[in-house]
Amino acid sequence: MVVGGTHGNERNAPWLLEFWRSQPQDLASQGLGLALVLGNPGAHAANRRYLERDLNRSFDPALWAESSSGQAELVRARELVDQFGPAGLEPCSVVLDLHSTTSSMGNSLVVYGRRPADLALAAGIQGQLGLPIYLHEADGAQTGFLVERWPCGLVIEVGPVPQGVLQSQICRQSQLAVEAALAVLADAADGVLRLPNQLVVHRHLASVDLPRHGDGSPAACIHPQRHGRDWQPMGPGEALFLDASGQTQAYGPPAGLEHEVVWPVFINEAAYGEKGIALSLTRRECWPLEASWGEELAALAKDLDRQSPVP
Amino acid sequence: MVVGGTHGNERNAPWLLEFWRSQPQDLASQGLGLALVLGNPGAHAANRRYLERDLNRSFDPALWAESSSGQAELVRARELVDQFGPAGLEPCSVVLDLHSTTSSMGNSLVVYGRRPADLALAAGIQGQLGLPIYLHEADGAQTGFLVERWPCGLVIEVGPVPQGVLQSQICRQSQLAVEAALAVLADAADGVLRLPNQLVVHRHLASVDLPRHGDGSPAACIHPQRHGRDWQPMGPGEALFLDASGQTQAYGPPAGLEHEVVWPVFINEAAYGEKGIALSLTRRECWPLEASWGEELAALAKDLDRQSPVP
Repeated sequence: MVVGGTHGNERNAPWLLEFWRSQPQDLASQGLGLALVLGNPGAHAANRRYLERDLNRSFDPALWAESSSGQAELVRARELVDQFGPAGLEPCSVVLDLHSTTSSMGNSLVVYGRRPADLALAAGIQGQLGLPIYLHEADGAQTGFLVERWPCGLVIEVGPVPQGVLQSQICRQSQLAVEAALAVLADAADGVLRLPNQLVVHRHLASVDLPRHGDGSPAACIHPQRHGRDWQPMGPGEALFLDASGQTQAYGPPAGLEHEVVWPVFINEAAYGEKGIALSLTRRECWPLEASWGEELAALAKDLDRQSPVP
Repeated sequence: MVVGGTHGNERNAPWLLEFWRSQPQDLASQGLGLALVLGNPGAHAANRRYLERDLNRSFDPALWAESSSGQAELVRARELVDQFGPAGLEPCSVVLDLHSTTSSMGNSLVVYGRRPADLALAAGIQGQLGLPIYLHEADGAQTGFLVERWPCGLVIEVGPVPQGVLQSQICRQSQLAVEAALAVLADAADGVLRLPNQLVVHRHLASVDLPRHGDGSPAACIHPQRHGRDWQPMGPGEALFLDASGQTQAYGPPAGLEHEVVWPVFINEAAYGEKGIALSLTRRECWPLEASWGEELAALAKDLDRQSPVP
């Protein structure tokens, strides 16, 4: 399952889906059967991130049982699982969720937690294209991501691009990442998957908001020396914010991270303002690959539809 | 009158207004009395361009008489004129309307029509900072701009910056342009205005939409070789669009412009998608300065409040 437009004001992935629908031969699908799905059609039509709540925080069955479960995005989340979930009408075992960001993330992957098949897929893509990986975990404030409801899946995150803007290079980057993922999955299905010896991840540590006034309005913005420097290390004392009087505010590490160098990601993502996130801090780690990861992906991939034409 | 946030998802100018309100000494106002005004507070609170209609197309008295005149932005337009218009409760004779754009416009000015005082003010700023000027005129599809309801005024337009994002360098560029404008006005008020010998304008010729399918969806995007190249000349046959099959579509001039080189502006401005504008075409012209322009600005500026402290 390849999803675009989970957020309605991210315009590049939906355009890519249209392109593939009209010219399936241009999607190097490696013979894999694919469902190409517009994530949030209502929000896409309105060119807004969402109508009532963030669809990509709505894939938590606990939410579906609440009194607010009639909200458009909760309804849509259930719909997608009912249709394309592993027990759905058109069951998919792997999902690629295509996003864009106003942050300078380049072409990158986001993995949620440490499911072995996800790590194998990410490692395979990283081995082909060298994409950096943000490992999102242990963040109780941000839950209910789409890919978590499928046995295997990850987010392809490309930026910077403003919300609402179509940029050919953003589409091209997304396309390359999707094709790399499909090549890994095809190899896994065929039993010929070879993965690199290590996986480099940027593991989520904490999120940091802008300094704010008592009324919630920003008291500073991202420092120009930090703007656009996602994935680049930052140590205590380095310039992070610029306040309204033109004074630099240095990065002060959260408790427990006092002496660490961190790697910021999602610096100045427009949609995260409302979530109180000006950037997230990660730790760069190199993990040796475990054989079980590839085995789990291969076991999943055996069930992938290897013959169907592209729908 | 200095207005920010006429569009609610342009966050940089409102931040600059807050900054100046809290630290008036950091605004080089040249002793001019200023009204610092948040253009569209409702849209700003919602972080949306507008609530019901574009405020910066709502300053047309003919609209105010229509049955739709209860729309939030029409009400706000009348409010601003009643309060700060030349015959208002706190009369202002000059307005600077601060905007940002997702296009790579840099730090630039937009002038609406050829009012002599506007041209003098723009020439003075261009003489100080070299900013390029987009002369918007003869475009019946886009009318009702805020600055047109004041005797003199222009738009300061800075980009690229995504909607909803605060970037210190965008604020800094806006601040420099405002301070240059205030310096010109102060000189005009003091009778010591010296203007350059010529004004370089990029005169509006036409707007061009993306190629679209029958259902209105985009059939192509801006070509990567044209993306980000606002203010740079383009001749017939140069790459302009890239269609979904990866084919380049060359720039085909509209009728009447067949053999002209044009200078595109507002390439890929996110908010112009709904207006059917992927870019606007201009002609670069150098005009000798007319003495009457400076005289008209000086006559207006005589009435400016030279002594009041910043509010």
